[in-house]
Amino acid sequence: MDAMTDLTGQLLIGAQRQAGSAKNFQAVNPATGATLDPAFDGAGPGEIEAACALAAAAYGPYRATTPAARAEFLEAIAKNIEAIGEKLIERAMQETGLPKARLEGERARTAGQLRLFAAVVREGSWMGLRVDPAMPERKPLPRPDLRLRKIPLGPVAVFGASNFPLAFSVAGGDTASALAAGCPVVMKGHPAHPGTCELVGRAIQAAVAECKMPDGVFSLLSGIGNELGMALVRDHRIKAVGFTGSRGGGLALAAEAAKRPEPIPVYAEMSSVNPVLLMPAALAARGAEIGKAFIASLAMGAGQFCTNPGIILVQRGPGLEAFVQQATDTLAGTPTATMLHPGIFKAYQSGVQRLHDNGGVKLLARSSDGKGPNECQGALFLTDAQHFMADKTLSEEVFGASSLIVTCADLPEMQSVLETLEGQLTITLQMDEGDNAQIETLLPLLEQKAGRILVNGWPTGVEVSHAMVHGGPFPSTSDSRTTSVGTLAIERFLRPVCYQNFAQALLPEELRDSRLGQSWRRVDGRMTAPD
Amino acid sequence: MDAMTDLTGQLLIGAQRQAGSAKNFQAVNPATGATLDPAFDGAGPGEIEAACALAAAAYGPYRATTPAARAEFLEAIAKNIEAIGEKLIERAMQETGLPKARLEGERARTAGQLRLFAAVVREGSWMGLRVDPAMPERKPLPRPDLRLRKIPLGPVAVFGASNFPLAFSVAGGDTASALAAGCPVVMKGHPAHPGTCELVGRAIQAAVAECKMPDGVFSLLSGIGNELGMALVRDHRIKAVGFTGSRGGGLALAAEAAKRPEPIPVYAEMSSVNPVLLMPAALAARGAEIGKAFIASLAMGAGQFCTNPGIILVQRGPGLEAFVQQATDTLAGTPTATMLHPGIFKAYQSGVQRLHDNGGVKLLARSSDGKGPNECQGALFLTDAQHFMADKTLSEEVFGASSLIVTCADLPEMQSVLETLEGQLTITLQMDEGDNAQIETLLPLLEQKAGRILVNGWPTGVEVSHAMVHGGPFPSTSDSRTTSVGTLAIERFLRPVCYQNFAQALLPEELRDSRLGQSWRRVDGRMTAPD
Repeated sequence: MDAMTDLTGQLLIGAQRQAGSAKNFQAVNPATGATLDPAFDGAGPGEIEAACALAAAAYGPYRATTPAARAEFLEAIAKNIEAIGEKLIERAMQETGLPKARLEGERARTAGQLRLFAAVVREGSWMGLRVDPAMPERKPLPRPDLRLRKIPLGPVAVFGASNFPLAFSVAGGDTASALAAGCPVVMKGHPAHPGTCELVGRAIQAAVAECKMPDGVFSLLSGIGNELGMALVRDHRIKAVGFTGSRGGGLALAAEAAKRPEPIPVYAEMSSVNPVLLMPAALAARGAEIGKAFIASLAMGAGQFCTNPGIILVQRGPGLEAFVQQATDTLAGTPTATMLHPGIFKAYQSGVQRLHDNGGVKLLARSSDGKGPNECQGALFLTDAQHFMADKTLSEEVFGASSLIVTCADLPEMQSVLETLEGQLTITLQMDEGDNAQIETLLPLLEQKAGRILVNGWPTGVEVSHAMVHGGPFPSTSDSRTTSVGTLAIERFLRPVCYQNFAQALLPEELRDSRLGQSWRRVDGRMTAPD
Repeated sequence: MDAMTDLTGQLLIGAQRQAGSAKNFQAVNPATGATLDPAFDGAGPGEIEAACALAAAAYGPYRATTPAARAEFLEAIAKNIEAIGEKLIERAMQETGLPKARLEGERARTAGQLRLFAAVVREGSWMGLRVDPAMPERKPLPRPDLRLRKIPLGPVAVFGASNFPLAFSVAGGDTASALAAGCPVVMKGHPAHPGTCELVGRAIQAAVAECKMPDGVFSLLSGIGNELGMALVRDHRIKAVGFTGSRGGGLALAAEAAKRPEPIPVYAEMSSVNPVLLMPAALAARGAEIGKAFIASLAMGAGQFCTNPGIILVQRGPGLEAFVQQATDTLAGTPTATMLHPGIFKAYQSGVQRLHDNGGVKLLARSSDGKGPNECQGALFLTDAQHFMADKTLSEEVFGASSLIVTCADLPEMQSVLETLEGQLTITLQMDEGDNAQIETLLPLLEQKAGRILVNGWPTGVEVSHAMVHGGPFPSTSDSRTTSVGTLAIERFLRPVCYQNFAQALLPEELRDSRLGQSWRRVDGRMTAPD
């Protein structure tokens, strides 16, 4: 525990470390059941008030910083996270049960994501500049000079997810995109990995100081129970919410946000079973191969991914037997893996039990029996389309390495099953050229059902890039118009403001004639490149 | 009434005219109180079901139309509206009491708006194309080919406003932007001008036929009471809502939409008092001139604009007296104007009475007494900042030609008043160069409070262009991230979809290598112009 001795368990409120007035708590090592030191402070009303007040005060000066300064700030955060070194990985391993290589990869992704947003901030087209020049001679009425830019919404409350203790946590995608947009962040760390949160939070705190960013541009609050999160969503200074977690949690926050005197947007990424469609030609050609790859995707990280393949739709025909046999055998030979925390393990167990007890569902395989606590014993089930469509509960997400193969008589029945499904983050196609005609039939429906459609890959593994969509129709997210991974995410935290007939000296700098040429902008609707 | 003989009073459901099963109703000429023929059918559950089912069926084929075909469709609507000729203006005059020149201008604006969206659809950057090319050699993991485009959300329910019987009604901004995005529209016409609605609706219906657009891409439903609107918002096939109207109406629709099993976005443009700030230097230099121009803006169209200047904030000092005197005299000499319908007139009367009865508010002037029914007798009131801030009701919108001058001791007090105000569509500055320092102090706050900030103009008169924002923080709208006037409005009805590792033949055409060069797109994040 030597490397961890500098964990304080305190809240980070702006530049300060501060004790909390609510109940404190400790992390548990899910692999051993051991309680981890130190105890972490819970944020009470006074600390929530302090963090929100500081964030509101920081909003003005932070959004006035130049894109270059903001980019450097994001890069400093990345550098500081990397500089924590091994003790970050060690603590995250203890708190999550995730293996070292996975956490190292996740750290690289987190730092890369911050640097990618730094590049986006510098590139500048996120400002959405538009100019409609004055037409003083126009009849019947002259047109005034109109200029538009996007400004940040205000302080954002970000809720860390348990399943990505780095990439969707304190310095994860929501934080990176909100800070990139110019919004201060009040972070609610996930209580399952508070030490990881503190280490990353202090890396951000240090970057704030190094880059002379306004105090309060970032705070980290922690706590158990729902009150902290609800209080953040209710606070009148919070102008948007980013959340990754359960459907129940996301819906509760969205409902609270809608009840405010001033409702605010909630970007909740919640629940998806990520259907995989095994198409006839591919199945006939390589059923067993697909079965093996499927289990690798299913079992990876104990299946604890938003994009885990929870439903397999397949038309009965050649290759199905080979697929099922190979998947069954592969899962049976797959070792168990520790789940993130006892709560997730318990929910997984009860989800698997529900499928197990369902009369129309057949258990195909469980992975080998685990020895330690919180071990995810993967589960594979089989049912048919008629039974699946008749029982709504079968389409509910079981978070973890559980999947249900649904056999369909033919394409129309596969289509009917898809039509009954709710919105999804992803839909995956295992297909060969011989399946093109069927896919052409299905594609419009797939587009309506999901934010991302993949061919001959697996949905786990989300690229952080420009063309990524990690979003989708309700209930996969609360707002299908956006993404929580990838650079498009910056748009979630912006709104347009129009300046009419402003003298040059009063315009925001980027909209002045003298500066406009440096930026992407629309002039009279025509997209125009920087000079 | 000859020119009107072909009004049928029927609903327009896809390509059909159809009788309604709910209570029928008639328009009233607000200038005379006379009931206007014919009676109009009210849409009942069967007709709502038919329109929504047709819209859902039309969604697939409509969004599959080419941008060029969609642009021609929008242009055909514009042409057909113009082709109705005088009888459209005559009927609208009878139904709204608005003068001929205003309605002719509004018709030109409506047609121009449709043609502007046609140009936007052709230009194509609304598709938001993004490509991240595959990196098969990347370590530790290869990157798949990722391509993104935006697709339309689905059928949209549009609610017509009473105060713009053409530009915010059946073929108004919401309809134009939704159709441009590729969304079918189920229109709820405003019951105060049902004949105008039918004429314009039939112009759209004819354009659907001429352009061979799918049946159901447009339907027009009418009715009195709230049930029709609520049923549309509840219908599972409706995927977004556009609304312009009262705060109560907008909030009720938003609440209903949030309660759906699948919540949907509601774009409600609701309520704004559009503060005008009279700055000291401008006031001293031209107080009387500003007073005169203010009343012209206030009284125009009986003040029935979302952007009517309802609050004047002014620091006590030189020029104030001249301003107040001139505004008072000018209003007293301004003739009354007929309001849109008895309901609006009644609400106006009660709003003015509320100010009149307020002990801390002084009546400065009423415009001359009207003779006919529903005549808006403009009203100008005066109070001070302390009283204004102590009484929340004084900042509520009075829809019509009523305004309240609020005098402030100094800049800090003006700022305090601004801080107490809710979100606004517009804030207007009457200023001279000598006011620059004060404006620089205020500007960050003004940006937080409004969607559009104007210098030395008046907020009435909203340009339909690329850089316009007719939106703003709650409660001026339900969603500050967008606008309901101008070309940016198309984005309200789109969502991104990512295609991962697709064979060229299966990609949407605009994302194929062979076509991509024709469009604006981001390649690895870099904005790239069409070849």
